[in-house]
Amino acid sequence: MSKTLGSIEAGGTKFVLAVADETYRVSAKKRIPTTLPDKTLAACIAFFKENPVDAIGLGSFGPIGIKQGTSDYGHILATPKPGWAGTNIVKILTDALNVPVFFTTDVNASVYGEYIAGEAKDVDSAVYFTIGTGIGGGAIQDGKFIGGYSHLEMGHAPVMMHPDDHYEGFCPFHGNRCFEGVAAGPTIEGRTGQRGETLARDNQVFDFIDYYAAQMAFNAYVNLAPAKIIFGGSVINDGDMPRVQKYFDELNNGYVQVPDNLIVHSHFADNASATVGDFALAASLLK
Amino acid sequence: MSKTLGSIEAGGTKFVLAVADETYRVSAKKRIPTTLPDKTLAACIAFFKENPVDAIGLGSFGPIGIKQGTSDYGHILATPKPGWAGTNIVKILTDALNVPVFFTTDVNASVYGEYIAGEAKDVDSAVYFTIGTGIGGGAIQDGKFIGGYSHLEMGHAPVMMHPDDHYEGFCPFHGNRCFEGVAAGPTIEGRTGQRGETLARDNQVFDFIDYYAAQMAFNAYVNLAPAKIIFGGSVINDGDMPRVQKYFDELNNGYVQVPDNLIVHSHFADNASATVGDFALAASLLK
Repeated sequence: MSKTLGSIEAGGTKFVLAVADETYRVSAKKRIPTTLPDKTLAACIAFFKENPVDAIGLGSFGPIGIKQGTSDYGHILATPKPGWAGTNIVKILTDALNVPVFFTTDVNASVYGEYIAGEAKDVDSAVYFTIGTGIGGGAIQDGKFIGGYSHLEMGHAPVMMHPDDHYEGFCPFHGNRCFEGVAAGPTIEGRTGQRGETLARDNQVFDFIDYYAAQMAFNAYVNLAPAKIIFGGSVINDGDMPRVQKYFDELNNGYVQVPDNLIVHSHFADNASATVGDFALAASLLK
Repeated sequence: MSKTLGSIEAGGTKFVLAVADETYRVSAKKRIPTTLPDKTLAACIAFFKENPVDAIGLGSFGPIGIKQGTSDYGHILATPKPGWAGTNIVKILTDALNVPVFFTTDVNASVYGEYIAGEAKDVDSAVYFTIGTGIGGGAIQDGKFIGGYSHLEMGHAPVMMHPDDHYEGFCPFHGNRCFEGVAAGPTIEGRTGQRGETLARDNQVFDFIDYYAAQMAFNAYVNLAPAKIIFGGSVINDGDMPRVQKYFDELNNGYVQVPDNLIVHSHFADNASATVGDFALAASLLK
């Protein structure tokens, strides 16, 4: 019998809920603002009561407890987002809806979507980076997410500053000593006083961001050796890829041999990798 | 029937050959210098003809082709070591000895040894770094090595220089822009003009190396989230671990929650993790 799949993209500003058939064709979709957990999760539950599903894939903002069998499993952990720290989101949803939930990070959901149906569908391994309000990365190899003890925090890897970049950084933990601190969306306004949408693409700030994206990709390559590195998020787009590739080649300087077409932009419009990934993760629970 | 296991640690200056029973108890061992492939491999073959084994684990210097089914598989790749580039070491050994060979990097063999019988034997994931003439890293999760397209090159990850360190670096590809370039053994003599053995341990150079070791560990943690990070090699020892931990904590600055006793020194004396790993990899071929 045909199964119905649910997706929850749990973000810091909005939750995107969707229902699809086994070919990931969407039959219902809703966005709800992320307010307090009681209210937001009640709206999730109401949506899936109206649109019943057999399983849900839930890709969440973090940090989260993703290790099954630990007391943290299913929880949002130490987030500054008011009310959410300690919320056992998986238990609340499964108690109310009585369906299995695959719980992972938003970027793991994205890399899974790319792996099942996107840029990484013909290879065995991939890394997905999102550059938006923050920077996150997820990684997969042979169908399993990388992360033995917990999920990855690739946006907080140490960064080698661009020699012309003297920005003090905005990461509350690491200042300008991590990628998020020097390359996430807020660094554009932090450097220029203007929002990215209002700036010409030849503004130096985008050159810096492409340089850091390339460095993230190189760092991911030497640490994980994936067959694909995929960029999504609102800050860089397909047009940035040649410059990211150029900086990657400069950083590598001929040292490691990498696969053809290693660095690509997300396959899906509107960063929908995560939705596809959530559906596929939901489907994986029904096999 | 009880099986006999072979280990080849193929290093750039020497090959260490060993034979053991299924409990990894060594019954024969030999060191041979790494000269030209014909001569060195003939000595390997002679040793294992005299001391027959049922399978061999071969942890090699790199870069190497470790992906089965590709034309590079089993080969030493673009090494500067005269004569070795392009040598199909696996084919030469299997043709002569007619036993299966598990081929991987030296650091993968080490992380496997720690995973099977050392510091990581009670956890599901680990990273092993060696800091010696060069810097290498291997990673494992749930019994599988990390690296979808090829093996890792963790020593060449971009580095954030210590603010007091103005060393120009020695990596021929990356200068002072990778960990190997600023923290491998030759950087000690490069900075001080003296070999490490002749310097007091409170020399600033060791402080720099511990800082970079900590940064490597932090970078590995955010990219791989292993349950253990294990250091081996001739440059740092057990006594460095508290300072590495201190720098790790400063770099993290309370951001990620890490497992207890994440950072440790190798379980095995004389960097024997690789030998144990080779034996265990050989045994894995006989199951």
